[in-house]
Amino acid sequence: MKFVTAEDRQGVFIGMVHESGEKVLALGRAQQKLEGINTFPETMHECIALGEGFLTMAHEIFAMAGEELFLPLSEVSLLAPIPRPAKNIFCVGKNYIEHALELGSKEDIPEHLMVFTKAPTTVIGFGQSIPAHEQVSEELDYEGELAVVIGKEGRAIKEEHALEHIFGYTIINDVTARDLQARHRQYFIGKSLDGTCPMGPWIVHFSAIGSPNSLRIETRVNGEVRQLSNTEHFIFPIQKIIAELSKGMTLEPGDIIATGTPSGVGKGFRPPKFLQKGDEIEIFVEGIGKLVNSVGE
Amino acid sequence: MKFVTAEDRQGVFIGMVHESGEKVLALGRAQQKLEGINTFPETMHECIALGEGFLTMAHEIFAMAGEELFLPLSEVSLLAPIPRPAKNIFCVGKNYIEHALELGSKEDIPEHLMVFTKAPTTVIGFGQSIPAHEQVSEELDYEGELAVVIGKEGRAIKEEHALEHIFGYTIINDVTARDLQARHRQYFIGKSLDGTCPMGPWIVHFSAIGSPNSLRIETRVNGEVRQLSNTEHFIFPIQKIIAELSKGMTLEPGDIIATGTPSGVGKGFRPPKFLQKGDEIEIFVEGIGKLVNSVGE
Repeated sequence: MKFVTAEDRQGVFIGMVHESGEKVLALGRAQQKLEGINTFPETMHECIALGEGFLTMAHEIFAMAGEELFLPLSEVSLLAPIPRPAKNIFCVGKNYIEHALELGSKEDIPEHLMVFTKAPTTVIGFGQSIPAHEQVSEELDYEGELAVVIGKEGRAIKEEHALEHIFGYTIINDVTARDLQARHRQYFIGKSLDGTCPMGPWIVHFSAIGSPNSLRIETRVNGEVRQLSNTEHFIFPIQKIIAELSKGMTLEPGDIIATGTPSGVGKGFRPPKFLQKGDEIEIFVEGIGKLVNSVGE
Repeated sequence: MKFVTAEDRQGVFIGMVHESGEKVLALGRAQQKLEGINTFPETMHECIALGEGFLTMAHEIFAMAGEELFLPLSEVSLLAPIPRPAKNIFCVGKNYIEHALELGSKEDIPEHLMVFTKAPTTVIGFGQSIPAHEQVSEELDYEGELAVVIGKEGRAIKEEHALEHIFGYTIINDVTARDLQARHRQYFIGKSLDGTCPMGPWIVHFSAIGSPNSLRIETRVNGEVRQLSNTEHFIFPIQKIIAELSKGMTLEPGDIIATGTPSGVGKGFRPPKFLQKGDEIEIFVEGIGKLVNSVGE
């Protein structure tokens, strides 16, 4: 089950992608045609907050819908699955040992979960341009990451119950201005330039993913493999991230947690390979798909 | 002009406080009675986003309203002026030299703006209890701060235009779990426990404040003066904060920026004076008023 937020001439819709990967069903519109009423909320965030009710409705409509109700994916524009999160995106820093080492030394391997955030204004969708930000940074860098979308509210969530709070998974490119990240000490400024959080292409429901802690992850820039790892190398597996983060803070449906990036970022090379205008970044995560964005003006 | 979000038996309302400081006008309800229609949005965030239109409407209704339409402030519950911000609260770290020194050494005085965030789930209003969080922290600390509320969207805002983007000012207690702040390196986790961002009592419109960079600020715990300073001691004045933060990131109406805390936090004392259950924290900021909260269960 893959859910998208997408747009065509009729407007923005929440869609469910066909098994073929080539067609999408606009759920609300389909229900309107089939049942004469549209009970789907307008945003992915609200759909997720409905919990099981949303999944049941989506399955029913999907099962009833004939061929003629599906739209070719090639004819719609994908937006980020959650185009405007209701709070900043939570990001885990240095969650792969090799990445901590490429940016520093053994002292940079965290003993405790490290979390910073990206503003909601950073979010863009599949295929949208990442602004080059040449006026403010000379060291724009990519970071391919698996992201978790929370489905069920909770605080003080135990590790053994953590996966029950997940709605699904998506891919995030945690684009980072390395010069700003270093200059301002706390990461927020270097992580929150407009358009520096490409997200997508869709949210894959958790039921389609075996263990989120053993997924192949790969990032290519202009076709060249830069990052190649597996989430089995997480320092903090997803259960641990959710347990730590929720110890004293309530996690809510629609919350997004980027789980950290493996080694191979631009700054890790000698000399560094920072992003240039026109560069195309592809991030593949096993079981999810591919997120593609280029650096624009 | 002071604007509140408040609640009484009839529900939540946006109100304008009378010059006496003792009465408040529920703007939408007053308009309904006077003009037979209520055109005020339901949330402060939406009111602010209306820009000048909101101020004009508010003034008109306020001028027309007779005594009988005002409610005694003592009979309503104040919520945080923006009870659920649309993104995390921006917080400036170490913006007073004496505070940077009390927590560290000269190396801790930042050369560049340092920004972290607090999740929207941290926000509570005047008089609401700050959770003691005894399960997760042994070092809960207070930080009295002047906070800026953005009124007009902007990116790459020049210092000389920065004040034009401000709607008004409020007070924030940036309650911090010092042990978590240190353990997790990036500040987010130690700054985002539920209920650790008391905010209020209201937003004072910018027109009522001369310079935001010369306001007396004082924090008392159980009546004892702990912090006493003036925003003239900012390392980064408000114009500079807005210019830096917006260099590559769009600021939006309703965004909240906490401007940093002066020296005198609990951790600065030998031995430290961390918050205990039952402690009452009062923060006074010149021209704004007083924010009072106690540590509860």
